[in-house]
Amino acid sequence: MATIGIIMGSDSDLAIMMEAGDMLDKLGIDYDYTVCSAHRLPFETQKYATEASENGLKAIIAGAGGAAHLPGVIAAYTILPVIGVPIKTSSLSGIDSLYSIVQMPKGIPVATVGINGSANAAILAAQILAVSDENVQAALLRYRQEMAAGVLAKDAELKSIGAKKYLQNRQ
Amino acid sequence: MATIGIIMGSDSDLAIMMEAGDMLDKLGIDYDYTVCSAHRLPFETQKYATEASENGLKAIIAGAGGAAHLPGVIAAYTILPVIGVPIKTSSLSGIDSLYSIVQMPKGIPVATVGINGSANAAILAAQILAVSDENVQAALLRYRQEMAAGVLAKDAELKSIGAKKYLQNRQ
Amino acid sequence: MATIGIIMGSDSDLAIMMEAGDMLDKLGIDYDYTVCSAHRLPFETQKYATEASENGLKAIIAGAGGAAHLPGVIAAYTILPVIGVPIKTSSLSGIDSLYSIVQMPKGIPVATVGINGSANAAILAAQILAVSDENVQAALLRYRQEMAAGVLAKDAELKSIGAKKYLQNRQ
Amino acid sequence: MATIGIIMGSDSDLAIMMEAGDMLDKLGIDYDYTVCSAHRLPFETQKYATEASENGLKAIIAGAGGAAHLPGVIAAYTILPVIGVPIKTSSLSGIDSLYSIVQMPKGIPVATVGINGSANAAILAAQILAVSDENVQAALLRYRQEMAAGVLAKDAELKSIGAKKYLQNRQ
Amino acid sequence: MATIGIIMGSDSDLAIMMEAGDMLDKLGIDYDYTVCSAHRLPFETQKYATEASENGLKAIIAGAGGAAHLPGVIAAYTILPVIGVPIKTSSLSGIDSLYSIVQMPKGIPVATVGINGSANAAILAAQILAVSDENVQAALLRYRQEMAAGVLAKDAELKSIGAKKYLQNRQ
Amino acid sequence: MATIGIIMGSDSDLAIMMEAGDMLDKLGIDYDYTVCSAHRLPFETQKYATEASENGLKAIIAGAGGAAHLPGVIAAYTILPVIGVPIKTSSLSGIDSLYSIVQMPKGIPVATVGINGSANAAILAAQILAVSDENVQAALLRYRQEMAAGVLAKDAELKSIGAKKYLQNRQ
Amino acid sequence: MATIGIIMGSDSDLAIMMEAGDMLDKLGIDYDYTVCSAHRLPFETQKYATEASENGLKAIIAGAGGAAHLPGVIAAYTILPVIGVPIKTSSLSGIDSLYSIVQMPKGIPVATVGINGSANAAILAAQILAVSDENVQAALLRYRQEMAAGVLAKDAELKSIGAKKYLQNRQ
Amino acid sequence: MATIGIIMGSDSDLAIMMEAGDMLDKLGIDYDYTVCSAHRLPFETQKYATEASENGLKAIIAGAGGAAHLPGVIAAYTILPVIGVPIKTSSLSGIDSLYSIVQMPKGIPVATVGINGSANAAILAAQILAVSDENVQAALLRYRQEMAAGVLAKDAELKSIGAKKYLQNRQ
Repeated sequence: MATIGIIMGSDSDLAIMMEAGDMLDKLGIDYDYTVCSAHRLPFETQKYATEASENGLKAIIAGAGGAAHLPGVIAAYTILPVIGVPIKTSSLSGIDSLYSIVQMPKGIPVATVGINGSANAAILAAQILAVSDENVQAALLRYRQEMAAGVLAKDAELKSIGAKKYLQNRQ
Repeated sequence: MATIGIIMGSDSDLAIMMEAGDMLDKLGIDYDYTVCSAHRLPFETQKYATEASENGLKAIIAGAGGAAHLPGVIAAYTILPVIGVPIKTSSLSGIDSLYSIVQMPKGIPVATVGINGSANAAILAAQILAVSDENVQAALLRYRQEMAAGVLAKDAELKSIGAKKYLQNRQ
Repeated sequence: MATIGIIMGSDSDLAIMMEAGDMLDKLGIDYDYTVCSAHRLPFETQKYATEASENGLKAIIAGAGGAAHLPGVIAAYTILPVIGVPIKTSSLSGIDSLYSIVQMPKGIPVATVGINGSANAAILAAQILAVSDENVQAALLRYRQEMAAGVLAKDAELKSIGAKKYLQNRQ
Repeated sequence: MATIGIIMGSDSDLAIMMEAGDMLDKLGIDYDYTVCSAHRLPFETQKYATEASENGLKAIIAGAGGAAHLPGVIAAYTILPVIGVPIKTSSLSGIDSLYSIVQMPKGIPVATVGINGSANAAILAAQILAVSDENVQAALLRYRQEMAAGVLAKDAELKSIGAKKYLQNRQ
Repeated sequence: MATIGIIMGSDSDLAIMMEAGDMLDKLGIDYDYTVCSAHRLPFETQKYATEASENGLKAIIAGAGGAAHLPGVIAAYTILPVIGVPIKTSSLSGIDSLYSIVQMPKGIPVATVGINGSANAAILAAQILAVSDENVQAALLRYRQEMAAGVLAKDAELKSIGAKKYLQNRQ
Repeated sequence: MATIGIIMGSDSDLAIMMEAGDMLDKLGIDYDYTVCSAHRLPFETQKYATEASENGLKAIIAGAGGAAHLPGVIAAYTILPVIGVPIKTSSLSGIDSLYSIVQMPKGIPVATVGINGSANAAILAAQILAVSDENVQAALLRYRQEMAAGVLAKDAELKSIGAKKYLQNRQ
Repeated sequence: MATIGIIMGSDSDLAIMMEAGDMLDKLGIDYDYTVCSAHRLPFETQKYATEASENGLKAIIAGAGGAAHLPGVIAAYTILPVIGVPIKTSSLSGIDSLYSIVQMPKGIPVATVGINGSANAAILAAQILAVSDENVQAALLRYRQEMAAGVLAKDAELKSIGAKKYLQNRQ
Repeated sequence: MATIGIIMGSDSDLAIMMEAGDMLDKLGIDYDYTVCSAHRLPFETQKYATEASENGLKAIIAGAGGAAHLPGVIAAYTILPVIGVPIKTSSLSGIDSLYSIVQMPKGIPVATVGINGSANAAILAAQILAVSDENVQAALLRYRQEMAAGVLAKDAELKSIGAKKYLQNRQ
């Protein structure tokens, strides 16, 4: 049974939304994927959201692009925290998605991350779980240390071999 | 029984949305007003939309601001034409509303008018009815003639009394 | 004789506007294509619009990019519903087209869809016809069911084979 | 007979457009005002533009707001230089007007000035006349000298009395 | 001891941020207010964030405007969920604040709500607590019912007395 | 001796600015090209502008990108009409160029065309010359007829061979 | 003799630019004010900039709005550091000013601060002087301590009297 | 020991930030590179900034993208001049970076250059050093002369071989 639900409005969002699943894997948290459009499958979307809590979900990550209603529609049917991922769009680069997700009316918030920020959505979901779960806390602290070590290693390499060589190695 | 449903996400949108009702009055078309939030009353919104056709509505005018989901959510539950009115917002001036309404995914369009353009939404609803209703056609043609006569009269007055006097009279 | 006129400001818009025609084909609705610039052929544009109704058109889909005047100019000459498709532009990504089409003055609305949203323009045209045409209603309901079934099938496949395999199959 | 035609889409633009007339007065150039909507009076707009040259106009200043089609529609019917003034709008502050005027397709340019820049439109019209009219050249050079003298006088006053006093005098 | 920390970059944000405190009061959740600038008091900001968890905080609501670094800086020093409130600014209306808060790099998310959306930040904080606290769950459900009842009552009043009277009563 | 000066801030603008020269060739108007940066060669820019009139220029087309000062700087030193071409930029797509060119202060206008609109700048220059030159008038009318005939031919071809074949032929 | 020159394109910018002078007063740095338009007084602007260094200026603070060329034009004539202050405009809120100032071409930078950020421009000027002037360093450190103490005092007051009372006291 | 510190939030910014180093090489100024994230390595960032002055740095060039906090965070810990380089981002093209860097609160300025403008950041750093270093002044003047000569040479070549040939040679 999944703890975090990852839902997206279209399977064209999957490549981005998989970064959320991959991050949850790294943090040792169960999740499942669902493709469900707020507009093409409104009753299924409603069912997903109203049953999310009894299905064991603790938080929901919802990605959508354009007039990105999915996160807000789900938030209307559940009091679980809903994390919205604005997907980059071809014409408006995701500004449309961002405004459609973040500018929710008073009463029904969506926790919005950056455009295409599904990895951060997963970390945020973990931070929410970590409020009452010490294992997830520990996993998050380990991840932070890894990140820090990674940047330190890059800085050391840059200082050791110089910028030109560093860039060549990366290409 | 109303032919056009005018629905808005909040009663704070009423001052703007009444311009739609006033225009429908002028064109001799029945309508009713509903306040119903896609986020605070999702089941009622769904009920409104799924029953709209059997309740006699031929088109729906939906106004909303911010992450303005109402028009799109209604469009998901009915094949009646849904006309979306982006309401001007205090921070983003209605750009958020516009993008949230107009950028609908393939399959579920919303006929979007300009920001705060509820009078135009009413005219568009009338134009939709006029496709199969000669009385509405006649009312629309009369309205166009009135508009044209109004501009011509203003131009004549401007040319007759000059710009300075014209402006003074208007203030 | 066509029921829906699809008109565009330049033949460079044709690839996008054909999605409207293809959708109307799927919904069993007659249409024809016209290339006619509001700026380079203003008299022909006026003729197209003023004669549209007597030529049997019930609604007009007009696509244009940049200072996209075509939908609004046509709307000035007819009371048929005019659906505007803002075409994506190379420098401003279609925001110019969107603003030029949606922000019409009071009295002359254009029913605006999303940037490059010509398929939705066709569905909206069908929804307008469906107000008084049960065959089009039926076609629209079938299309909705197909869409829903399509998303459900994708969701089932994703759940059956997993995200990684699903993505590989799509590439 | 006027040399410059000043035309606007609505009498609500008159307060701004009068700055154009006032500037032309200062430069000694004849002009007349017209209110004529490209959407509400399309045939009159066409007539104005097609007859502009034979009526003695040498250039046209056209102001409009929102989906500001007036300058571009006029430019479609005449080869006189058309100067477009984007009028500030309440929701989009004139960005809609600016994009709708400046982003004209290849072949039909509109010489666009800044938002609400009708005084500059008048100066630009004068600069166009000045190409073949030495009186207007002289008037423009006098105006430039006056402007320069005005700034120099302000700078001298500021340096003489100091910033605090200067501001107080201006309030 | 507070459960939710409400922190803001300047006391000029207090009027907006108090909506968060008022909402937490309504939901029965303890909180405290802090004014602490990420730029003017960087060490105190760091101390606040690194000690937040041991001080008993379960989530942090951080409001800031302009180059709104406060939420992100706090998120860098704690794994508690940080909810960012972009404050509306005088020149850019809060778009600067929104982008500065929501576009966080991979690894350090901030849960962003709408511009000036501090009430929603409080609800989101409650939803996070509710994942493991049934009292907060109950409070949230009660609040949702109140909201729903409020909209229903407004709709009933609108239908009973009509739009004109409704608007008069509100003014 | 050239009648129209085409000047650009960098030789990287040449590919775009050559569309102006090519259009002037088509209209039979003499021109010359200059590369001169308002920032890197301020004295030469000043010299170009102050001597433009005595060098026989009747109008100047100035293209620039980013903080595109060139058109405005030239306009400060001459009363010849200056036509500004905002060049598309890699990060802001030319919005920076557009705002930097069109939003000139009162007194010193720049006639601005669309982003990368150098062909239109040339036509506008010709329209300015045509105010007092019947040969250029005739050339402009010929060009308009050619444009119109071109669109009519495309429309005829589209109607004759159908959209699918038309698109294939264009690819 | 002044160390910092504060120059502005119009005396309407003085109220904002005086915040720069007031800050320099507080930091004990000499300055003078100049009103000089890059467009209306191009030769005087050039003179100001080319003579700035020999007149003893060490840095220049230049404020301008709209197509805000003044900072960039000055930077073209001197190698002194030029700090640009984008002034808020009525239509575009200073986005035009910001882009026109910050997006300078390679070779001629302008150190840009926030919209209406003239106080910060003064601090930046002081930081530049402080690179080689220990008195200014000391003044800057004192100012930082004052700022920090100010925020700490506000936080203490807020915690002592509570948010409601704090707000009342501020109104 | 370096005079200028070049720091960036991620090694993905290195290709852009190396243009700063290359420019400093050309101007004969020492520098070093550091990769250090304000979010992933907040303590190291603080250490870098607080020790910058005693490590001999005279100014800091900081590049970052998205919610680009690095320049502002560093500025909070030092009174050295901090020059911010907004890095272009994939979704918002660097507008997010620009707003996050330039809109700093009163008291803590960041000298912002254009998007991806790291070469200009280096020149600005040199201009700051040049206030008290005649060698850097000389280097800057030489660089300006080289730039001027470069543009003059291109203009001469363009005039000598014509635009078509010039473009071909460049491709």
